Amino acid sequence: MIVLGIDPGYAIVGWGVLRTRAGRYVPLASGAITTPAGAPFGLRLQQIYDELNAVLERWKPQAAAIEKLYFTNNKTTGIGVAEARGVILLACQQAVCPVYEYTPMQVKQAVTGYGNAKKPQVMEMTRRLLCLKEVPRPDDTADALAMAITHGQASASAMRRQTLEQFRQ
Amino acid sequence: MIVLGIDPGYAIVGWGVLRTRAGRYVPLASGAITTPAGAPFGLRLQQIYDELNAVLERWKPQAAAIEKLYFTNNKTTGIGVAEARGVILLACQQAVCPVYEYTPMQVKQAVTGYGNAKKPQVMEMTRRLLCLKEVPRPDDTADALAMAITHGQASASAMRRQTLEQFRQ
Repeated sequence: MIVLGIDPGYAIVGWGVLRTRAGRYVPLASGAITTPAGAPFGLRLQQIYDELNAVLERWKPQAAAIEKLYFTNNKTTGIGVAEARGVILLACQQAVCPVYEYTPMQVKQAVTGYGNAKKPQVMEMTRRLLCLKEVPRPDDTADALAMAITHGQASASAMRRQTLEQFRQ
Repeated sequence: MIVLGIDPGYAIVGWGVLRTRAGRYVPLASGAITTPAGAPFGLRLQQIYDELNAVLERWKPQAAAIEKLYFTNNKTTGIGVAEARGVILLACQQAVCPVYEYTPMQVKQAVTGYGNAKKPQVMEMTRRLLCLKEVPRPDDTADALAMAITHGQASASAMRRQTLEQFRQ
């Protein structure tokens, strides 16, 4: 299965594409969509939409994984992130790519086995699971790859559950 | 000038198109995009995008006016509204239609002359300014028309300022 992980934002959108099979992960491509800080907000949204469409078109992922959004401290930034996330969800919908949401704790649990792991641990385990020489840069890209791994694990265990239930019948 | 007013949401997006000239407002069309509550969120965003694109294509507004978003009480609903708003901003950007934002207080001030006016007063003044027999329904559509009137007033006074400054030179 080909999975696209996305770390949403309006300044930087991290993305990473993996092939998952039998609990192994092969990174196919990754990057970051970076929009200019001084540009009108509508133009930044359009850039995100266009560049993400190019990724969806090129890699044709069967699933997208994206961080579940909560608002805590910075409400004003939060609105912009949610607006960008809306554009990302639209692009996935138009590409007929189903979207799955995971919390930061689910990502930490999936990648390190520990839901309260620190960010450097998550980064390092992401590097190892993908057999990369270095941790991907920027952090947004590494986060997106960790998100894709999380979906790979979740769907593998969902498949295992399904198989078990088939045996029981 | 043709102005599109938008009341953003993910369940209902109110919209209204006006022609403004010399402080008068002629309503051209208005309506509401209503998305089914049970549908997947991505599908609801796509419906909003498609139907708003049809409005932009049909009426070719020279400006769009939309409510400035703040988060206060219901954070979870707020995220969905901001995500829908991102899709709306994208559609306007792609239609090369500049977007202007106004606060609820600016709308009340523009329509009734009083920034703390109650909702029924705003509705009734919107009806009168547009020479309509009845207040438009649903409320989201009436709010969108009030938003368009607000932009008409703001740009008329901006134009007056500009003219004055030309005389001064």
